[in-house]
Amino acid sequence: MKRRGVSELEAIELLRRVLSSRSPHVELGIGDDAAILSVGRQRLVWTVDTSQEDVHFDRRWLSMSEIGERAFEAAVSDLAAMGAEPLGALSALTLPRHVSEREIRELGRGQARAARRTGCPLIGGNISRGNELSITTSALGRAPRPLRRDGARPGDELWLVGPVGLARTGLELLRWGKPLVSAAERRAVAAWRRPKALLVEGRGLVGRARAALDVSDGLGGDAGHLSRASSVAVVVEATALRRALPRSLASAVARVGRDPLEQALAGGEDYALLATGPAKARPAFARCIGRVERGEGVWLEAPDGTRRALGPGFDHLG
Amino acid sequence: MKRRGVSELEAIELLRRVLSSRSPHVELGIGDDAAILSVGRQRLVWTVDTSQEDVHFDRRWLSMSEIGERAFEAAVSDLAAMGAEPLGALSALTLPRHVSEREIRELGRGQARAARRTGCPLIGGNISRGNELSITTSALGRAPRPLRRDGARPGDELWLVGPVGLARTGLELLRWGKPLVSAAERRAVAAWRRPKALLVEGRGLVGRARAALDVSDGLGGDAGHLSRASSVAVVVEATALRRALPRSLASAVARVGRDPLEQALAGGEDYALLATGPAKARPAFARCIGRVERGEGVWLEAPDGTRRALGPGFDHLG
Repeated sequence: MKRRGVSELEAIELLRRVLSSRSPHVELGIGDDAAILSVGRQRLVWTVDTSQEDVHFDRRWLSMSEIGERAFEAAVSDLAAMGAEPLGALSALTLPRHVSEREIRELGRGQARAARRTGCPLIGGNISRGNELSITTSALGRAPRPLRRDGARPGDELWLVGPVGLARTGLELLRWGKPLVSAAERRAVAAWRRPKALLVEGRGLVGRARAALDVSDGLGGDAGHLSRASSVAVVVEATALRRALPRSLASAVARVGRDPLEQALAGGEDYALLATGPAKARPAFARCIGRVERGEGVWLEAPDGTRRALGPGFDHLG
Repeated sequence: MKRRGVSELEAIELLRRVLSSRSPHVELGIGDDAAILSVGRQRLVWTVDTSQEDVHFDRRWLSMSEIGERAFEAAVSDLAAMGAEPLGALSALTLPRHVSEREIRELGRGQARAARRTGCPLIGGNISRGNELSITTSALGRAPRPLRRDGARPGDELWLVGPVGLARTGLELLRWGKPLVSAAERRAVAAWRRPKALLVEGRGLVGRARAALDVSDGLGGDAGHLSRASSVAVVVEATALRRALPRSLASAVARVGRDPLEQALAGGEDYALLATGPAKARPAFARCIGRVERGEGVWLEAPDGTRRALGPGFDHLG
């Protein structure tokens, strides 16, 4: 259920218009991290996510095992964002002819490692030939009280769970191609190579948060999804966000010549969680980075109270 | 959960060895048309299937709407084979840059048409960029008593539900490129372009059949899957199969210079169902085309009782 770039958004809009999701079982269709189905007394959350060579990953910087692990964690992150317990996953692989037996085995080992870590067994799939390596993972979970994007209310705090900006910094360090000289830089690269779906934290938000989603498109962009789904204004407080950022980010980001705050707003592939809820309900693992107000849009508020708009799909790299 | 060609089979074997599907919810993992999950009192069947340009379809012979419809029906056919009632589907699209807005809309309309026909709402998905058009559809259903591949017993009849061989004939007529001169030829092309998942028939097999699967790899190849999963010999009776073939097949196949029987054994994309069960339980819509015996392998039995083996992945076109 990830949206990447404006053309993808347009394509989703086109498809939303021709598709009808009316059904007695469908509680929530296109537009959240995952769909919600009611089946008997169960509420299921269900997602699909594609990792495509040269779009979502580059084989120069990832082993086959990391590619498998990363694709799996990215899909399971949608379940985390809904506060769900994973039931299982299916994986559809497209394998180019040049991929060797050893590489296929490595890819599977990476998927299996993520499956064990997340407690989400990989229970089947499909393999087909193609010219580009791609991994589509569908993950299913159950959630008695799923967290949606559309529940944020004016007066809520804005919560960040997990690091944000590190993974993007790691990718830039790899693109730069210089040897990694500090623990912070190695941590940034590891954050990009081996992100972890925040399942425990996602379930810990249930009963506390009013809305949640995972940060895959960048904190700025995903705050925009939250704002539109809930019809509210989202205010990111610069000082609070800066305080919430991991210490390693400031150190690692210096080398790529960026400001940690901008990097955090643009970065997404750490698969952090963004949530909103009443101040008194905030769990210990969540940092308050702003607030929800009446209105619309996403705003970055400076210490002096001035604001600038963060547009949809905000990305300072353009 | 389709297997296509020997290399895909090998890849599945490699992955099966590194993946573990042990989980309290997983009743059946890799190796059937769909996985089976037990969640509370519900039994869910779940599949994923990829349609890839130049592997599973050719845009010269299909409109975008037909591509969408076909990919959807192929995935839902796995639910039909398990005797399941569809709950919904997710679709992951990989769209090359040259695909226009109009074409995306057409693709979605084709998916929506199949969703309406099958009663399986398309409730979400994922869109990403790539150089090859591909559609991965995950379909979820519920089945209190799912039909599996591993239940066939010696003494069972072998049942065919739906046409087989027509779709392959249609594809060959298109490849040939001559104008279609008869209703039978047009029917064959329609069978390939717009296959229909046999959901009603699949549910009608529940309580009657002991095993079932859909015919996607060719009747011969899929009988092999049934034989291996159930550890039995499958005997296809040539006379009975010939009698069960649609009349239009004999007429359409003449133009491509093949024998209808061989075409039926090699053809798969009609998405017919193959099942086994006791003679007295056979529903009116199923044709008996052979029997299940102790032993192994798939055998074609001539009227004089002589047999020849149909190997795994049997395909007379090589």
